Amino acid sequence: MTTAQVKKPYLLADRKNHPEDTVVTVGTGDGCEPVKIGGGNFQIMAGPCSVESDEQITEIAAAVAAAGAGIIRGGAYKPRTSPYTFQGLGEEGLELLLKVKKLTKKPIISEIMGLSHIEEYSHVDIFQVGARNMQNYELLKALGRQEKPVLIKRGISATLRELLLSAEYVLAEGNKNVILCERGIRTYDHYTRNTLDLSAVPILKEMTHLPVIVDPSHATGRAELVAPMSLAAVAAGADGLMIEVHSNPEAALSDALQAIKPEEFAKLAAQIEAIRPFAYHK
Amino acid sequence: MTTAQVKKPYLLADRKNHPEDTVVTVGTGDGCEPVKIGGGNFQIMAGPCSVESDEQITEIAAAVAAAGAGIIRGGAYKPRTSPYTFQGLGEEGLELLLKVKKLTKKPIISEIMGLSHIEEYSHVDIFQVGARNMQNYELLKALGRQEKPVLIKRGISATLRELLLSAEYVLAEGNKNVILCERGIRTYDHYTRNTLDLSAVPILKEMTHLPVIVDPSHATGRAELVAPMSLAAVAAGADGLMIEVHSNPEAALSDALQAIKPEEFAKLAAQIEAIRPFAYHK
Amino acid sequence: MTTAQVKKPYLLADRKNHPEDTVVTVGTGDGCEPVKIGGGNFQIMAGPCSVESDEQITEIAAAVAAAGAGIIRGGAYKPRTSPYTFQGLGEEGLELLLKVKKLTKKPIISEIMGLSHIEEYSHVDIFQVGARNMQNYELLKALGRQEKPVLIKRGISATLRELLLSAEYVLAEGNKNVILCERGIRTYDHYTRNTLDLSAVPILKEMTHLPVIVDPSHATGRAELVAPMSLAAVAAGADGLMIEVHSNPEAALSDALQAIKPEEFAKLAAQIEAIRPFAYHK
Amino acid sequence: MTTAQVKKPYLLADRKNHPEDTVVTVGTGDGCEPVKIGGGNFQIMAGPCSVESDEQITEIAAAVAAAGAGIIRGGAYKPRTSPYTFQGLGEEGLELLLKVKKLTKKPIISEIMGLSHIEEYSHVDIFQVGARNMQNYELLKALGRQEKPVLIKRGISATLRELLLSAEYVLAEGNKNVILCERGIRTYDHYTRNTLDLSAVPILKEMTHLPVIVDPSHATGRAELVAPMSLAAVAAGADGLMIEVHSNPEAALSDALQAIKPEEFAKLAAQIEAIRPFAYHK
Repeated sequence: MTTAQVKKPYLLADRKNHPEDTVVTVGTGDGCEPVKIGGGNFQIMAGPCSVESDEQITEIAAAVAAAGAGIIRGGAYKPRTSPYTFQGLGEEGLELLLKVKKLTKKPIISEIMGLSHIEEYSHVDIFQVGARNMQNYELLKALGRQEKPVLIKRGISATLRELLLSAEYVLAEGNKNVILCERGIRTYDHYTRNTLDLSAVPILKEMTHLPVIVDPSHATGRAELVAPMSLAAVAAGADGLMIEVHSNPEAALSDALQAIKPEEFAKLAAQIEAIRPFAYHK
Repeated sequence: MTTAQVKKPYLLADRKNHPEDTVVTVGTGDGCEPVKIGGGNFQIMAGPCSVESDEQITEIAAAVAAAGAGIIRGGAYKPRTSPYTFQGLGEEGLELLLKVKKLTKKPIISEIMGLSHIEEYSHVDIFQVGARNMQNYELLKALGRQEKPVLIKRGISATLRELLLSAEYVLAEGNKNVILCERGIRTYDHYTRNTLDLSAVPILKEMTHLPVIVDPSHATGRAELVAPMSLAAVAAGADGLMIEVHSNPEAALSDALQAIKPEEFAKLAAQIEAIRPFAYHK
Repeated sequence: MTTAQVKKPYLLADRKNHPEDTVVTVGTGDGCEPVKIGGGNFQIMAGPCSVESDEQITEIAAAVAAAGAGIIRGGAYKPRTSPYTFQGLGEEGLELLLKVKKLTKKPIISEIMGLSHIEEYSHVDIFQVGARNMQNYELLKALGRQEKPVLIKRGISATLRELLLSAEYVLAEGNKNVILCERGIRTYDHYTRNTLDLSAVPILKEMTHLPVIVDPSHATGRAELVAPMSLAAVAAGADGLMIEVHSNPEAALSDALQAIKPEEFAKLAAQIEAIRPFAYHK
Repeated sequence: MTTAQVKKPYLLADRKNHPEDTVVTVGTGDGCEPVKIGGGNFQIMAGPCSVESDEQITEIAAAVAAAGAGIIRGGAYKPRTSPYTFQGLGEEGLELLLKVKKLTKKPIISEIMGLSHIEEYSHVDIFQVGARNMQNYELLKALGRQEKPVLIKRGISATLRELLLSAEYVLAEGNKNVILCERGIRTYDHYTRNTLDLSAVPILKEMTHLPVIVDPSHATGRAELVAPMSLAAVAAGADGLMIEVHSNPEAALSDALQAIKPEEFAKLAAQIEAIRPFAYHK
């Protein structure tokens, strides 16, 4: 490596070294229909924060799949700030996600909290690395030795360079299927849970060839902001969205305030479809 | 006042006490055509950061007016962090703005730095209060006793409540023509000059009836981000945009990196027009 | 000016151009005893947030003067986020401050909110520029044409360079008696009102020859943190402290949570005196 | 659990449920002399950022032990933002740390990056959880099942509540030997690497019974600020300090700018000893 490379060391993630957009293919096996993201392919990942029960995940997954979501999201093991709050259904949650995948034929994304869960996640189609683990290098290296796509959420105060260097840990181990996700940064402003940094979308797309999606649900923490921020993210050029949907948000076991209802999601998915042709692209 | 009112004291700015959108009419006299902003009326304010010369302001103003800008912007007295950098043309700048107003028939917005300039600004159609003066209460009170519209930019670390309370200082003195402007907040992230907080748009429009516009030029400080962030701001529901345009950005006496060229502005104005029907609204 | 000077343009504030510490002399006329600050001279400025009544200010001023405060603080015109909260006693407050000055023979510091008050402040010994007005250049220039010392509080999100450039506005007009004050910056952390940035003390003292003091009361907003943060500020090398004291904090008309009682101040002043010989100095 | 407990759920860390200070004993076996931290016991942890060679670690460890450090620090596996920078000597580094421990008879602290290293760390006396792993719950739970002390560094944007909840993950698994470390938070201000939040010291000591130390080296990232910030941390009531020392800072393989030399450390250790009797305590 030359000195210049050391100074800007996300060699594999750098668009300068890989000008064309990376297109990540998601979903293999279990009878699901693979989908593409990046390079003009746009996907919505939708579903509940946590898998809570068979009825809950089945109902929501069917509804979002029907409304246009290409990928189903759902948490099985949940990273929770407190050790005393609901930690997810675990193994049972993973089984329910597999069931839903067979039912809807849509690939599944679920957050992975550490090394020890990798084998258990064999039917999950995208390993989601949460904001808290963005710099858990032991986990990133291990996922770099897997073949399935890895979605990395921006850490709560990560710079874009740090996010790309975390992606580089995965890429350097051989896994080229990395997706980046802007999900809000921590600022002094507490009207929203975090401050959605939409300028990250065009900047990242200039810095890297990897797909960039936006999570307006975690970024804002408020259901009524999911629609305007989803439309804004699309307008700014995002390759996809991750949206929390719950049939009964008030009763959700986690993140109750930010989930939208299936019927709201259906309306929003149509608005997203309508605005997409007018989105920014270079 | 009751205790409840003391706790949420932006009484006049509060949408709860004034459910319908305020529509501000801009431009009277000097032969200009008045324009409206708010309540479904969308305006682009465009022009150079600073008025630099007769040729410069005339050329840019004519170009942006032709491309669809409803209001011309230009700085005469400039707030500069250092006392040793270009402080604006002052009185001469104001005269050039009046000339341009007569030529284009478009109203003029220009930043006012203090009490002592109010009389001098008699031909300026919107008093712009900059981010540094958002809590200059002496100035806000004085502008509250004027009749012309006042545009208040969000302070570099102001909460939305603080912004509304600054608006309240103007409203409480009798001037009801207040426009709010999101222009980025200061965060740890230094890829952009500031972090554009677009969720402020739907939140402010829920909190208040006043028009809310976005300034992507100062927010990002980078010309290549002006287009994606303008489209995103429109998608999020903004009532207008303030965009810096310069015929020769490299030679601009201030803010050279963030100005776009007249031909780029013309292209962007058309994209804005195209995306507007798909923007978020409640 | 050379290019190098333009890049680091706080020429008059820069320690490189003025290696020895500036010593500011405070207090002339009205029978008060002048005090020095900077260059090894340490001063505590103490008193209530706002002057509320003759009894209140007289009692507190006498107590803090007896306990070791060299300068009395008290607000006459108060910058308040809301136009509907107590705005200070105004002219009557200034008269009470003059009375107290004659009584205690201690100089007075009081915040000035704008141009229009300069004449009224003829008996105030230090013009305090609040955090909200740190970049009110019209005010800074006007105070630069005065002879009395100017204390500039760091803006809520100001960098140290911006603080020095605000000082430069005063110095460039001819007034060399500038004191800087660290009073906390706005961060995501809301346990304290602001985050006291004590590393600003040794950094500023390296960058500039001007005296640097610390205001732990406004920085933390919590009375129980005033003592530990005062001792820490002294240990870090501060030239002085500004501390809010109130005989009956619960009943204070502003900033009730952060004021300490006169007896707590007396105990703290003794602890400050004891720790001073062990403070950092280069 | 009652609702009240759920709202403030760091039950085991909470001082309300455990009023007396926790005293953590560090160092067992390998012939080292155990030391105590907390409850009036003050310790300095000092040494290089990374173990680089036998000579390097032996020289520095002997020097800091002689000057008063109670615990030796040194990194074997290093968390690095980039996958291409020096990642530590690994196993060899751990062997050198054991050698140094036998030589100086001082306990050792070293950062642990993940589950897979726990067994390898059998001779390390304190498991250090770095800022990037503060919310790596898989790691925290595993360390909670160990007996040796765990030092948790505050995440780069963690609130104090989040820090205590991470401690709670360890405590809830049965390990009561937790030490907290303030090491600076990420703010807009880039003069220092991070902003040292010293008010965290008295606040944490009010919230919890666990020992609280300060790392001025990582907080500021600048060697010349280590002395003033160490003295300030002691004045604010810290139970200890973690200080980076290197015999030849310019040649250090990591964090070259923030290490002080052994002779500077010796001088600082004496100043710390001198100021301690005047530090804040409740």
